[in-house]
Amino acid sequence: MPASSTRVRVRYAETDQMGVVYHGHYFVWFEIGRVELLRQSGFDYKQMELADGCHIVVVEAACRYRSPARYDDELLVETRVAAVRQSALKSAYRILRLEPGADSAPKLLAEGETTHVVVDGQMTRALLPEKYLAALRG
Amino acid sequence: MPASSTRVRVRYAETDQMGVVYHGHYFVWFEIGRVELLRQSGFDYKQMELADGCHIVVVEAACRYRSPARYDDELLVETRVAAVRQSALKSAYRILRLEPGADSAPKLLAEGETTHVVVDGQMTRALLPEKYLAALRG
Amino acid sequence: MPASSTRVRVRYAETDQMGVVYHGHYFVWFEIGRVELLRQSGFDYKQMELADGCHIVVVEAACRYRSPARYDDELLVETRVAAVRQSALKSAYRILRLEPGADSAPKLLAEGETTHVVVDGQMTRALLPEKYLAALRG
Amino acid sequence: MPASSTRVRVRYAETDQMGVVYHGHYFVWFEIGRVELLRQSGFDYKQMELADGCHIVVVEAACRYRSPARYDDELLVETRVAAVRQSALKSAYRILRLEPGADSAPKLLAEGETTHVVVDGQMTRALLPEKYLAALRG
Repeated sequence: MPASSTRVRVRYAETDQMGVVYHGHYFVWFEIGRVELLRQSGFDYKQMELADGCHIVVVEAACRYRSPARYDDELLVETRVAAVRQSALKSAYRILRLEPGADSAPKLLAEGETTHVVVDGQMTRALLPEKYLAALRG
Repeated sequence: MPASSTRVRVRYAETDQMGVVYHGHYFVWFEIGRVELLRQSGFDYKQMELADGCHIVVVEAACRYRSPARYDDELLVETRVAAVRQSALKSAYRILRLEPGADSAPKLLAEGETTHVVVDGQMTRALLPEKYLAALRG
Repeated sequence: MPASSTRVRVRYAETDQMGVVYHGHYFVWFEIGRVELLRQSGFDYKQMELADGCHIVVVEAACRYRSPARYDDELLVETRVAAVRQSALKSAYRILRLEPGADSAPKLLAEGETTHVVVDGQMTRALLPEKYLAALRG
Repeated sequence: MPASSTRVRVRYAETDQMGVVYHGHYFVWFEIGRVELLRQSGFDYKQMELADGCHIVVVEAACRYRSPARYDDELLVETRVAAVRQSALKSAYRILRLEPGADSAPKLLAEGETTHVVVDGQMTRALLPEKYLAALRG
């Protein structure tokens, strides 16, 4: 199954008064990972919405937080396709912090999953066009 | 000119690691004030977008921050129409904190302005329908 | 076990280009519900952080989306304590849309849960002070 | 005066139901530009907060929107120091969209300014340490 890895840097706006990233923002990073996985699988989510009128909407999302992300941290968003059918898609994610020392392994901060269904512009259930399905099956 | 006042409570998600509200969120409160001013003037921004295909987009926004808003503060968003033409609209805002003591005046936290133009669904300049214009002129 | 219900109105800033609320924002509504449940149980999360140096951090969060929330919808956030121990707390949520007709039942849009642990200012595991524990046990 | 340029890609979460980026998010991009300008001038805003207890808070922010940013656009955030004193700092920004064709010039989407003062951890006015001042004067 396809997998991808992309980097994000924690923004000041993403922190809260505990001094760590607000937990809701991890789902935005998951979305960034998902879009990059699609891009690396050879298709463009923007074009899929525009050209095929096809949207992938979230029906379930979960995150388990191990250790907090902090302002200016450089993070790795690892994404993989966990399951794919013509009408639904499941992705799994890991958020890791890149440690400054060159020989330190990245530290796992959070793990999560999202489940998606395919809909058209009227939010009616639809099927993923075959070309995307093939790409996601890797 | 019409004016309105509405209340918001500061959300944890709106704070940053300085322990105060992140400055970008004030513009969201301005938008809440603007929508409530429209509602109190007798029209519904949601319907205006849906039924008339008319959108009010921001072309300029500014805020001056006097004193920080903090988590769980109860705020007053005061909004007034500062200028209105058929193709453009200017609003002015004040954000005040309601002080716990019954006899304390609310404390001014920030002031700002936004300027808007009217566009259709294709983002082309349009004119505000007459019924809305009349309401906004008060 | 204590339960509470509070209202939020969907902000324009919370929508995305699908024309519905971005899925990450539901976790902000869960947090609003949680804070209101605490308030209705007789304590103030802000004071708990300030006076007792006690923070409730999220270690797990999940949401299942049934039907999309849209701009300007009036929502009901129903929150209940699902489990409480001195070092951990689990809450459950339902997001419902208030339907315009007076005799329509609110429509269920989403359900979720969050699990929390108690930490001090240095993010070290701590115990919930007894007074809060009693309130949360109802 | 120091100037810097950094790239951001528009996130789905940043769009609204008009199909364009919500105007409040431009201030987050300005902040990203500011932090990168500081980094390129040789200092680290995170360390400045941690080691020197020095915070740069926004007292004024403004943005003029020329053309909307859209989902997945690659943007250039150009930042320059517009004025610097030991107690205050003014930055200016331009947001441009990188056009797909290699020979197209980036398109200007927005311009803005922010004014900042230096405060300590108690939000009391303070002076910028000399080492930072020198870096910002370029």
